Amino acid sequence: MRLLLANPNTTQAVTDTIAATARATASPGTEIVPATARFGARIIGTRSEMAIAEHAALDVLAREAEGCNAAIIGASIDSGLRAAREMFPFPVLGLTESALHVACLSGARFGAITLSRRSAYPLREMIEGYGLATRCGGMRVVDCSPLDLMANPERVGDLVVAEAEHLVAVEMVDVVVLIGAVMAPMAARVQARLNVPVVEGVSAAVALAEALVRLRLPKPRAGGYASLPARETVGLDPALAARFSG
Amino acid sequence: MRLLLANPNTTQAVTDTIAATARATASPGTEIVPATARFGARIIGTRSEMAIAEHAALDVLAREAEGCNAAIIGASIDSGLRAAREMFPFPVLGLTESALHVACLSGARFGAITLSRRSAYPLREMIEGYGLATRCGGMRVVDCSPLDLMANPERVGDLVVAEAEHLVAVEMVDVVVLIGAVMAPMAARVQARLNVPVVEGVSAAVALAEALVRLRLPKPRAGGYASLPARETVGLDPALAARFSG
Amino acid sequence: MRLLLANPNTTQAVTDTIAATARATASPGTEIVPATARFGARIIGTRSEMAIAEHAALDVLAREAEGCNAAIIGASIDSGLRAAREMFPFPVLGLTESALHVACLSGARFGAITLSRRSAYPLREMIEGYGLATRCGGMRVVDCSPLDLMANPERVGDLVVAEAEHLVAVEMVDVVVLIGAVMAPMAARVQARLNVPVVEGVSAAVALAEALVRLRLPKPRAGGYASLPARETVGLDPALAARFSG
Amino acid sequence: MRLLLANPNTTQAVTDTIAATARATASPGTEIVPATARFGARIIGTRSEMAIAEHAALDVLAREAEGCNAAIIGASIDSGLRAAREMFPFPVLGLTESALHVACLSGARFGAITLSRRSAYPLREMIEGYGLATRCGGMRVVDCSPLDLMANPERVGDLVVAEAEHLVAVEMVDVVVLIGAVMAPMAARVQARLNVPVVEGVSAAVALAEALVRLRLPKPRAGGYASLPARETVGLDPALAARFSG
Amino acid sequence: MRLLLANPNTTQAVTDTIAATARATASPGTEIVPATARFGARIIGTRSEMAIAEHAALDVLAREAEGCNAAIIGASIDSGLRAAREMFPFPVLGLTESALHVACLSGARFGAITLSRRSAYPLREMIEGYGLATRCGGMRVVDCSPLDLMANPERVGDLVVAEAEHLVAVEMVDVVVLIGAVMAPMAARVQARLNVPVVEGVSAAVALAEALVRLRLPKPRAGGYASLPARETVGLDPALAARFSG
Amino acid sequence: MRLLLANPNTTQAVTDTIAATARATASPGTEIVPATARFGARIIGTRSEMAIAEHAALDVLAREAEGCNAAIIGASIDSGLRAAREMFPFPVLGLTESALHVACLSGARFGAITLSRRSAYPLREMIEGYGLATRCGGMRVVDCSPLDLMANPERVGDLVVAEAEHLVAVEMVDVVVLIGAVMAPMAARVQARLNVPVVEGVSAAVALAEALVRLRLPKPRAGGYASLPARETVGLDPALAARFSG
Repeated sequence: MRLLLANPNTTQAVTDTIAATARATASPGTEIVPATARFGARIIGTRSEMAIAEHAALDVLAREAEGCNAAIIGASIDSGLRAAREMFPFPVLGLTESALHVACLSGARFGAITLSRRSAYPLREMIEGYGLATRCGGMRVVDCSPLDLMANPERVGDLVVAEAEHLVAVEMVDVVVLIGAVMAPMAARVQARLNVPVVEGVSAAVALAEALVRLRLPKPRAGGYASLPARETVGLDPALAARFSG
Repeated sequence: MRLLLANPNTTQAVTDTIAATARATASPGTEIVPATARFGARIIGTRSEMAIAEHAALDVLAREAEGCNAAIIGASIDSGLRAAREMFPFPVLGLTESALHVACLSGARFGAITLSRRSAYPLREMIEGYGLATRCGGMRVVDCSPLDLMANPERVGDLVVAEAEHLVAVEMVDVVVLIGAVMAPMAARVQARLNVPVVEGVSAAVALAEALVRLRLPKPRAGGYASLPARETVGLDPALAARFSG
Repeated sequence: MRLLLANPNTTQAVTDTIAATARATASPGTEIVPATARFGARIIGTRSEMAIAEHAALDVLAREAEGCNAAIIGASIDSGLRAAREMFPFPVLGLTESALHVACLSGARFGAITLSRRSAYPLREMIEGYGLATRCGGMRVVDCSPLDLMANPERVGDLVVAEAEHLVAVEMVDVVVLIGAVMAPMAARVQARLNVPVVEGVSAAVALAEALVRLRLPKPRAGGYASLPARETVGLDPALAARFSG
Repeated sequence: MRLLLANPNTTQAVTDTIAATARATASPGTEIVPATARFGARIIGTRSEMAIAEHAALDVLAREAEGCNAAIIGASIDSGLRAAREMFPFPVLGLTESALHVACLSGARFGAITLSRRSAYPLREMIEGYGLATRCGGMRVVDCSPLDLMANPERVGDLVVAEAEHLVAVEMVDVVVLIGAVMAPMAARVQARLNVPVVEGVSAAVALAEALVRLRLPKPRAGGYASLPARETVGLDPALAARFSG
Repeated sequence: MRLLLANPNTTQAVTDTIAATARATASPGTEIVPATARFGARIIGTRSEMAIAEHAALDVLAREAEGCNAAIIGASIDSGLRAAREMFPFPVLGLTESALHVACLSGARFGAITLSRRSAYPLREMIEGYGLATRCGGMRVVDCSPLDLMANPERVGDLVVAEAEHLVAVEMVDVVVLIGAVMAPMAARVQARLNVPVVEGVSAAVALAEALVRLRLPKPRAGGYASLPARETVGLDPALAARFSG
Repeated sequence: MRLLLANPNTTQAVTDTIAATARATASPGTEIVPATARFGARIIGTRSEMAIAEHAALDVLAREAEGCNAAIIGASIDSGLRAAREMFPFPVLGLTESALHVACLSGARFGAITLSRRSAYPLREMIEGYGLATRCGGMRVVDCSPLDLMANPERVGDLVVAEAEHLVAVEMVDVVVLIGAVMAPMAARVQARLNVPVVEGVSAAVALAEALVRLRLPKPRAGGYASLPARETVGLDPALAARFSG
């Protein structure tokens, strides 16, 4: 199977990082097809950038979806996830949504750790929007930049471990979820130092994408995710506009 | 004061309709500045179009915001509302959010009526996202197109009245909210036939925008709506990109 | 328009304080009509006083409502708000309800600060009763008396700032709401020292009352806020009893 | 033990009815002490009457509490319940709160049936305020007056049975709660015709009052129900004012 | 009346302890009939032991129920409570469920204190399962073993007092609930040192069992707690199997 | 990998049915190891049988877990799921939990259809217990016995289709979940006649089990699912008792 990994961040290095993690998790027969958004923030971190990324995620997915069996949206905020699930006939997974569901299947409550304080506000709303707030024991922020993370992963790892230990000891969570596309390699780094499972989104999304492809659920013809009817649009990239031809 | 009315639908006739309603509600000193999105759906109705409109709303707001004291986003799904509230230093209101808050100030439970079944799915999630699900007694769908509405407002009015009466009698709501930019003139049409207040978003947003301007709350420098820090972006319209210059 | 400002506390000095704040916010054409309750606590602060104030608020509103276009109930616990909304044909606003809705229109989560620990218990329930608990990031208590506040506003201001900073930093709120009729002048005092908007109830209620009057929603004839039917009562003040004549 | 049964409705016949039911449930050593409110509605049914009854309930309790070991507030809306629980050193029970807790101890979900449509709106909020909304499978309204009920109990019984059967069959409730002081004798009337337990408030409150007296929990000296501190009030009945002497 | 007190823990000493507390609360005419589970954990504390205790509780109840008027399940996790409520024609109460309802009748929010950290996880879920999470201000863990408690009740009492004071001061609870069968004597020990009521499950369950017996609600013939239909089972103790004979 | 499929129902034919479905979904390298409970109900359907099955599920899992990489509990009520997740070092999945998570990854709201009305009551609580009530648009009951289903699958299929169509049209769900071990073959039967995806638990659990095995999350050493400490038990099957040896 071909698994499209669409990165709504416009930074190729992020795409490379998550593609590497994805390939490490994927089954032998699964090909990872990475793609990077054409417009928007280098690293999505504010509400404004998230709004733009809703469009950018669809744009890149529409351009690259041909021949794929499933897609993963490679940003912590799951940019355009619901729309893509409507637009395409195959399973579409988001990093954070996937990590949260894996966490729910592994324990009663999860704790979330994110790199950026700024994005913690909308991430909190996203967890609520998934209806999983009662499963969330708390969210903690390491608050360093992706550059910090890449430059000094060990130091950031120490911070992640400290926050995770707080979540386990005080908030009584069973699982820790690392939120953020660039956090993908961090899970392996800190797992040995923590007493609870550490889930990150890229490998979770790959595993769930393979599971959903195996289940072969049909594309809905009714409900809120039915195939797009023919719709008139203006000013869109041709590949995206073509998705509205019904 | 200048009140920017940004329509994320790419149809000028919708902009004209809501601008007319806005002008009818606005105080004498309030100037309504209408603007129409440059890309996206003619009439936003699917999740995919809503994702694109998140970007399109910011794009048009960024181009037209100069000199304005507040803005209203003229689509039922409040496209880009949270992002715009972050991006701009003045109050930003959405049609549906405004209507729901006016309804909450007028009764205990509101019922919602929307034109399009397709958009009812994400609208339901939006109400939940605003934390107002416990105030919502039910959502009903008239399920006709904007064209139907314009061609035959009387017949659609009959449908709206029937749904509203159901909400009042069976769901025991105190207020009815008409959701949808093109529903703006419908409230006046059906109010006389209904026993509860009928709220629509355009006039609600105008009244609340004026109230918020009067309160002169400062732009936050902290929290999830603080001014945008300097951020690197690619591929955006210059007016929008300039908003990320910090 | 005439805006009745009914204070359920039986202290004229509180009425004077909130009337001054109300006048500072009101539009040029708005006349503030202050009135003070005739029975009950000097300063409402316990559940028992709140129960009595439900009646006292209606009593004073019924005596003074003639010729008014809207009313505001000037106590933090919004005494008699739902009843007054039923009883009168015009918009009725409460201080705290108004402040919470303005906060919701300005950010995702608000934090609440109240003067009195004793009243924090029922205020917490009131926020839940408004269905806004998911929007509330936390409530903090300064815990000093109204007399402390009036005698030493600077010191109390320091306490308010400290609690607000905690709410912003730890609870990640976007807006701070000051709860309490006597807190009205405090918002202006502390706003310059805080990085998020500070909302207080009196100005919020005045601005929303003007907005609702502008919207001219009709008095419901059905639902839970329909006009009072004729009802038999005993032992009430004639002005109040007259409201039950149907 | 002496059990004060304070009726916030100003109708002696209602007091007599609920006192008879109370006596039928009470243990041999329990004396029922009935009392009727001095002001307010003959039959509480609107939000405005409920607001007044908050005060009237405290007023009559304060006058009659001397020598009692517990109190029951004899109105469906549990007028002044939280305040009375603060004001008095003994257990205070409400009719509806008691019935709901008995229902929760007898099944997973209860259905509620009330006489008056008008009072169903605030009763719904009261159930939510008790935090029991998730236990409530639905509320149905018979919608007849207390006079109808007294004049034609058989016909009203038929209506109650029909609504109860709907709740059991469609809403899948395990228990039916009859809400309303005047509904007290109805439970016995319809129980034989229904397949699930029927709970009404008066006997529930008597049984729970005896249970709480047996448990001898101390009056709190902290928290939201601590004894009233000394407070200055004006215009209250001397017996009530005396409760604020600290 | 005969009140069966079935201990799902397989430790006779626990049965003796709770029976003593039960007898101290019971009315003169109430006979406490203690019984101990035949299989499972000595002291139930893990999820696995709780799962086994679901069966063990039914097993012992089925063997001893003959001639009883009500039953209490004597474990903090209320093992088999819902099943027993289905299986038997009389009221069945659990320790924690009873304590929580007594707490709800005594204040707005309760705080919970439990001995074992391990069991705090499922107890938290149980409170949510009862729909009472919004009434719970927090759960604190003393984290010592039942052996510690029996060997050094004074020291454990100090820990309980410290946690209770935290719940009152910081979480603003009105009542403290001690969770755990072996905590039964602790309530009396710490009550004098605390400013809020302390509720424990055994006495709460006895008082509520007597109240429910007095109310004589019929065994449901419909709903989720209707009498068991005839069902085929294998491998069960004859007394338990007989309950499935319809 | 070896995937233990433990059926808490004591009916071999049910084990055979679900094993066949499991084998049809499993990847080439996955071996399905079926096992049937030794005691309890032939077909679990009442709360009492579910309580016994909590124990029976652990009992059979403990006897058969040796050499397995994951386990699935083959009953709609997910008997013993949380306990087994604690007890074993490998992933444990339940039929209904798995189906619900697959549904959440495929749409916004799911509708549930179950065979037995009696089990619908606790299933509703189970969905709430998983924190997924806000994702559930409704539960419908076909209300026929497993024997009916096996004897006349076509007729039952018609009933399932009718209920599913109601859920899609009226409750606006995006996905339909068939609940019940014996419903496994029904999904394939009705999928072609329905416009939304139909998810059943056996294939969902197999796919998710493979995904979780691939993710290699470690067994927790902390939190509510840490390995069992040494615990003293009595009267258990040796294989089960051995699990408590620490």
